[in-house]
Amino acid sequence: MRVLGLDPGLSLTGYGCVAADPTSPAGGRLVEAGVLRLPSRRPLAERLQALETDLAQVLDDLAPAVVAVESVFHHGRNPRTAIMMAHARGVLLLGAARRGLEVVELPPATVKRAATGSGRADKAQVQAAVAARLGLDGPPEPPDVADAIAIAFAAAARVLAPIPEPTVRDRSARTRG
Amino acid sequence: MRVLGLDPGLSLTGYGCVAADPTSPAGGRLVEAGVLRLPSRRPLAERLQALETDLAQVLDDLAPAVVAVESVFHHGRNPRTAIMMAHARGVLLLGAARRGLEVVELPPATVKRAATGSGRADKAQVQAAVAARLGLDGPPEPPDVADAIAIAFAAAARVLAPIPEPTVRDRSARTRG
Repeated sequence: MRVLGLDPGLSLTGYGCVAADPTSPAGGRLVEAGVLRLPSRRPLAERLQALETDLAQVLDDLAPAVVAVESVFHHGRNPRTAIMMAHARGVLLLGAARRGLEVVELPPATVKRAATGSGRADKAQVQAAVAARLGLDGPPEPPDVADAIAIAFAAAARVLAPIPEPTVRDRSARTRG
Repeated sequence: MRVLGLDPGLSLTGYGCVAADPTSPAGGRLVEAGVLRLPSRRPLAERLQALETDLAQVLDDLAPAVVAVESVFHHGRNPRTAIMMAHARGVLLLGAARRGLEVVELPPATVKRAATGSGRADKAQVQAAVAARLGLDGPPEPPDVADAIAIAFAAAARVLAPIPEPTVRDRSARTRG
C-alpha cells in the first residue's frame, strides 16, 4: 500500500511516496519524492489550478491509496503564510477526496516522533533523520521534500500498525476485590 | 454580465449573483442569492468536495462571467477560523479558474464603501445597506448571504466603471514654464 505525504505551499508543495512494508526496518521504502512548483507570478486562482493539475499527474503516476498531510495549527509565527498555504491544502485535500483516497491528518509532533523518536525535534533534526533513513549524505532539497517524506513514513507506520486488541478487565473485581 | 459574489466558509458559504446593469441606480439587479451548507460532521476533505459540487451547480445555473471574493487579510481575531476558511476559498477559486471565469479580489474596505459609502462601516451597516438596496424590511439571513451580495454589487460596480481615458500631459512644459 502506497502512502503519499504532502507538504502544501503556494510556491512549492513537497511530495514523498512511500510503499508501506512491514518487513522493512523503516516500515516502508521510498518510491518517489519531489516538488510541485507553482507559477509564482500568476494570480492565486491560476496557481491553484496548476497545483490541481500537478497533483492529478502525481496521483496518476504513483497511485497511492492514502494521502497524508500534517494537521493545521494556528500558532505559527506568520498567520498570512498559514492562510495562503491553506488554499493549497484545500485543493490537495479536494484532489484526494475526489478520487476516494483515504486522507490521514497527522499532528506535527507525531511526524517528528516517527522520524526522530522525539515529538520536539526541530526541522533540521527531522531532515537529518530522513537523510539517514534513506542512506543519503544530506537531506533531500528543498526542505519541503524531506518534510513530505517524513509525513509519508509517519503515515505508513500508522497504516501498518496493528490495531491493538481490546483489553477486557473486570475493574470492579480488581478494585473491590 | 453576471457577477457572482462569494463569502467562503467551511460551514456556510454565502453567494449572491448580480446582473451588472449601468441603467440601474444600484448598478445591477440581484438574480439569486443563498448559501452552500456543508456537511459539518464529515472530514474536511469530504466537506471540500461537497463545496466543489455545490459551487459547480451554482455556476451551471447562474452562468456568471466574474467571480468575486474579498481579499484575505491576516489581522483577524481568529487565525484558526481564517485558516479553515482559506481551504474553502481555495476550492472556490479553483472552481472559477477551471471554467476560465474572471476572478476579482476586492479589499473588504472597497466592499464596505460600495455598499454604504464608508470603508469603515461595520457588518450591521453593510447588511442594512444591502437590505435597503434590495427593498427588504431586514437584511437577508444568514449574514453570509448579505455579505456575498455586497461583494457582488461592489464587483459589478467595478466591472461597469468606465476605464478612464489616459490623460496626456506635457509635464516638462508645465513645470519648466
